[in-house]
Amino acid sequence: MGTILDGKALREKILANLKKQIDNISLNVRPKLAVILVGDNPASQLYVNTKKKVAQKIGIISEIISYPASVMEDELVRKIEELNNDKTVTAILVQLPLPKHINKKRVINSIFPQKDVDGLCEYNMAKLFTGEIPWAYPCTPKGIMQLLDEYDIAIEGKHAVVVGRSDLVGRPVAQMLLNRNATVTTCHSYTKNLPEIIKTADILISAVGKKLIGENMIKSGCVVVDVGIFKDESGKTTGDVDFNALEPIASYITPVPGGIGPMTIASLMTNTYDLYLKQNKLS
Amino acid sequence: MGTILDGKALREKILANLKKQIDNISLNVRPKLAVILVGDNPASQLYVNTKKKVAQKIGIISEIISYPASVMEDELVRKIEELNNDKTVTAILVQLPLPKHINKKRVINSIFPQKDVDGLCEYNMAKLFTGEIPWAYPCTPKGIMQLLDEYDIAIEGKHAVVVGRSDLVGRPVAQMLLNRNATVTTCHSYTKNLPEIIKTADILISAVGKKLIGENMIKSGCVVVDVGIFKDESGKTTGDVDFNALEPIASYITPVPGGIGPMTIASLMTNTYDLYLKQNKLS
Repeated sequence: MGTILDGKALREKILANLKKQIDNISLNVRPKLAVILVGDNPASQLYVNTKKKVAQKIGIISEIISYPASVMEDELVRKIEELNNDKTVTAILVQLPLPKHINKKRVINSIFPQKDVDGLCEYNMAKLFTGEIPWAYPCTPKGIMQLLDEYDIAIEGKHAVVVGRSDLVGRPVAQMLLNRNATVTTCHSYTKNLPEIIKTADILISAVGKKLIGENMIKSGCVVVDVGIFKDESGKTTGDVDFNALEPIASYITPVPGGIGPMTIASLMTNTYDLYLKQNKLS
Repeated sequence: MGTILDGKALREKILANLKKQIDNISLNVRPKLAVILVGDNPASQLYVNTKKKVAQKIGIISEIISYPASVMEDELVRKIEELNNDKTVTAILVQLPLPKHINKKRVINSIFPQKDVDGLCEYNMAKLFTGEIPWAYPCTPKGIMQLLDEYDIAIEGKHAVVVGRSDLVGRPVAQMLLNRNATVTTCHSYTKNLPEIIKTADILISAVGKKLIGENMIKSGCVVVDVGIFKDESGKTTGDVDFNALEPIASYITPVPGGIGPMTIASLMTNTYDLYLKQNKLS
């Protein structure tokens, strides 16, 4: 029976710990997260509201700056430049996706690396890619690593197989595992012998968004991390992994929901606080 | 018997082709490579002289700017800013390694991405890492891909195993292979079951610098690319791979010397010319 990697419990622990530290801040400047929201995508609005609520709960000031979908790219960049220069703002986040007429990269790269709480600007990406320490790591990959660390799961020398190569999850988590001295294989839709490769994994990270990892597909004792989250035909929230089939032979396994999902927001808050500390030279 | 991947022949072909194109340039502005050389490391001096000679042969103007090892970082950055703004300079290269008192990253990142002929600045690295097209790809990885392409070696869906994770070779070539839809495993000194993993490779790239890949270690038909180059005990130039042992079962194999080595300089010249074309909107 695999141990459940309980992201919800770790999120609560991280947030309680952050709250305690933030309550004790003696400086006038306090951590403040500015979120830029463009358009009226309901999922984005929900995410942003959750971020705001969680921030509030632990004493992080937040500001949501909303724009209509028709906003000009230059206006967003100007706003970010203003936030960059605003000493009361310690973290800036642009809620993705952005409308198609906006150059996402240009907008994200206009954020000062020191305030780039999602770790997605070129400076922070390049640091990650060369094994150096960025100002902030992307939130979901960071959440994965924190959850593994919470359960003292060894990474060095292990064979980690990452399925999926998105900018937000697959690619950065592969680099973070590599930088922690795992041997890393990245798989994707063109991978021919996926079951064969998955079978060799000591640590399996699946970030695809469809039911992919079923019975008999992992080796005994594998650590299974399921980043996928979507609704199945019956409307039930599920992940890439057949949890019931794999749980008996995994050594550790994340549930969906309640695994990596809660970790993403915990990492966002940790990043916001860490950037505040670094900017104020307290860490 | 494996087909020899003849880097020397491809280098000559590439250089001849570049020469023809450069001879036909009708603009007043011509491709010009500026090389910054710091200190008196004999290997660096040799490399820089080779670059100059090859550039000259094909009609690329080159300028070598030499500094004593004691040069201040700020002076290098100022020089690079001057070269950035000099319209007659189309490509800038900082010969590595730099003395320890100089922040290599800061120096490299002061090069305009459009003139960064080694593809090592953050902007170009981040593009590579996110599967987009940088202004220039790092020269050795680019040379590897060009050599594979010259022999029409399929990459998509193949399992590529990269041994070594340096910023100059292992990490970028892994990303280039991933961006061409290979399944990619990155191995290094912490990898536990290296022989087992190597045995699964359709394409093996070894960039370590010691004799590592011997008899019976590859599967039949593997494409073997040896980036290692060093002198053995008897003073003979050799690579990571036991060429004689592997050549009979590889489908393709690079010799050392004469494989990837010559490709690096060919890629540098190609990058110099390509940056010239892009800057002048000719491509």
